[in-house]
Amino acid sequence: MNFSINTDVLLNNLMISQKALSTKTPAPYLQGIKLEVYDNEMVMLTSNSDISIKISIKDESLNIEEEGQILIPGKIFFEFIRKLDKGIVEFSVVDNNVLKITSNHTDLSLNLLNVDDYPSIDFNLVDGPIKLESKVMKSVIKQTTFATSSIENRPILTGVNIKVENDELTAIATDSFRLSQKKIKTTKNYEKMNVVIPGRSLDELHKILELDLEEILLHLDKKSIIFEYGNILFKSRLLDGSFPETSRLIPNEFPITLKFKASDLAVAVERASLLSVRDSISSIVKLNLKPNHEVEITSNSPEIGKVVEDIEPLDCQTSTSLKIAFSSRYFLDALKTFEGQEVYVKFTGEIRPFIIESDKDSGLIQLILPVRTE
Amino acid sequence: MNFSINTDVLLNNLMISQKALSTKTPAPYLQGIKLEVYDNEMVMLTSNSDISIKISIKDESLNIEEEGQILIPGKIFFEFIRKLDKGIVEFSVVDNNVLKITSNHTDLSLNLLNVDDYPSIDFNLVDGPIKLESKVMKSVIKQTTFATSSIENRPILTGVNIKVENDELTAIATDSFRLSQKKIKTTKNYEKMNVVIPGRSLDELHKILELDLEEILLHLDKKSIIFEYGNILFKSRLLDGSFPETSRLIPNEFPITLKFKASDLAVAVERASLLSVRDSISSIVKLNLKPNHEVEITSNSPEIGKVVEDIEPLDCQTSTSLKIAFSSRYFLDALKTFEGQEVYVKFTGEIRPFIIESDKDSGLIQLILPVRTE
Repeated sequence: MNFSINTDVLLNNLMISQKALSTKTPAPYLQGIKLEVYDNEMVMLTSNSDISIKISIKDESLNIEEEGQILIPGKIFFEFIRKLDKGIVEFSVVDNNVLKITSNHTDLSLNLLNVDDYPSIDFNLVDGPIKLESKVMKSVIKQTTFATSSIENRPILTGVNIKVENDELTAIATDSFRLSQKKIKTTKNYEKMNVVIPGRSLDELHKILELDLEEILLHLDKKSIIFEYGNILFKSRLLDGSFPETSRLIPNEFPITLKFKASDLAVAVERASLLSVRDSISSIVKLNLKPNHEVEITSNSPEIGKVVEDIEPLDCQTSTSLKIAFSSRYFLDALKTFEGQEVYVKFTGEIRPFIIESDKDSGLIQLILPVRTE
Repeated sequence: MNFSINTDVLLNNLMISQKALSTKTPAPYLQGIKLEVYDNEMVMLTSNSDISIKISIKDESLNIEEEGQILIPGKIFFEFIRKLDKGIVEFSVVDNNVLKITSNHTDLSLNLLNVDDYPSIDFNLVDGPIKLESKVMKSVIKQTTFATSSIENRPILTGVNIKVENDELTAIATDSFRLSQKKIKTTKNYEKMNVVIPGRSLDELHKILELDLEEILLHLDKKSIIFEYGNILFKSRLLDGSFPETSRLIPNEFPITLKFKASDLAVAVERASLLSVRDSISSIVKLNLKPNHEVEITSNSPEIGKVVEDIEPLDCQTSTSLKIAFSSRYFLDALKTFEGQEVYVKFTGEIRPFIIESDKDSGLIQLILPVRTE
């Protein structure tokens, strides 16, 4: 094998590719990046237990003297290419198992891994994939994955449930203490589907979507999903098992609706949470709606002290008062997913789940379970 | 006690003050910030086992209704003030041991520590302190502390040796594998002094010197040194014991002198070090000066591969060749302390210490011990 390519082109693609690189694995070949060059194309392949990434590179700087395929130790290759001067970098295989990399005044000889050890990974694309705007896909991920469970004892909850029916896609994540649900409209009708994608896979996909291409295609089969994004194929395994039915968890009627400026609400909860943070991971704060529609957010630690934040709702639809306690972290996480500057916090009762919504973020519901205190 | 002050003024001073705050200490009172308000002044005091900081604040926004002194739990106080809205914040002590903090819609009650527990700390200033430009003090710190030892088995080497004689100040740090020496001229003659200041204290001082005031005064007595920087007194303990005599370690004559562009040299050593990093903390690279004045920097790991960097010296004063091996990290650390874009690397022999100097950085010598290989 013998080829040359622009260093920046190689590096930009390596930066994507290495997101699927295994660093700790009993299978050393998964620490490798598989490179194939043929015709006018370079194919870069990486894989770990959750995701696989295949990138096809057709760049005018790519000059292939001799075709071939190799398996390169991934981490050191990436580190080295990152430190190269700009310009053209040349690659050639010598003695069958050594890659010579030459650029300017630099000469690296790198022992290769055995390319025959690399598993064969299918990237079969289906007919009629689901088409989404990539910025919509990005916001769906950002608005849901944070609410997945990080505890592995109910593996299904570490994933995001994606359901499609007719022209509606619904994404749901829950760790059983909070729930995030986002509904979007697709441009046409699709066949019914219902899958659970690991939250971590989606977080990695989110980083790649920074490229700002217009569209992303979702190719689904029984055991995996492939996201097609320009010249990148991003494949994730799916989670086995059925995702809990959550539709009945979200109340339909809310006797108490408060409207706030989101930034004011965030600052008040952050400050109130300062005292509770010391005592527990869950950092509980209390919201107290008084009959005169004043709202206090408080926290209290007998040893340290007490915070009282007064915050005036922009609007308050209720005639009753309310005292409710909740995790400040869950509340702040949820609040951050809204782009709208004004949010509604809607309650049904003191020990019932409450939700956050915003006019500017249609289809998005954040639900939080309160905690009992005293 | 009862006073108010502008939040930003308070916060800016707290940011300095908290550098001497103990976070883990068997003495809970050292986790406190001592505040005294009297006349038109607020005094803020923090202390840990190495350093103490006393700040005097006389700001037009400071309005004292009632004088007094209190001891506040430092970390939570700082976190809270940092999250306050801009404007005026009011403080008052109630029930003798609770501090009420009020700002806009926020109300914090904080349980105080017992101010009588706080140790008395002397900040006695001497006559005729040493006066330095603060930017000179900053560069002396940056150019030396990195070379102190981080291992505590020879405690004296964790400090920087500061010597003054006539109108010359010399700062020296060494971990016995490398040595950094900086000499500067003072504006007048001072009495002879020779002390060792903990490197960590100087690193904390360096952060405070970001304020960009013109001058800094060094007040020295037997057991401690006080740096006076505007309204800040920064006191550090001194290290006991005598610092090794290092003057004879630095060779006087260098048969081999190579001149390099510093940035090219840094990149070449960084790239060469990539392969060695895997194998050992010391990450050894080799420099090979050929008879034709070409320079190669190489590293070699039988399992991974080999890097060869060619770098052309700007100038080469010698008629012999040279092979020498050294720690790439020590070399890069040393190189970073030079502001000049061109550096001299001067050798006396293959197993002898070598130094780095630059015309633009007068008084600065970085010395590195080579390692034996093969």
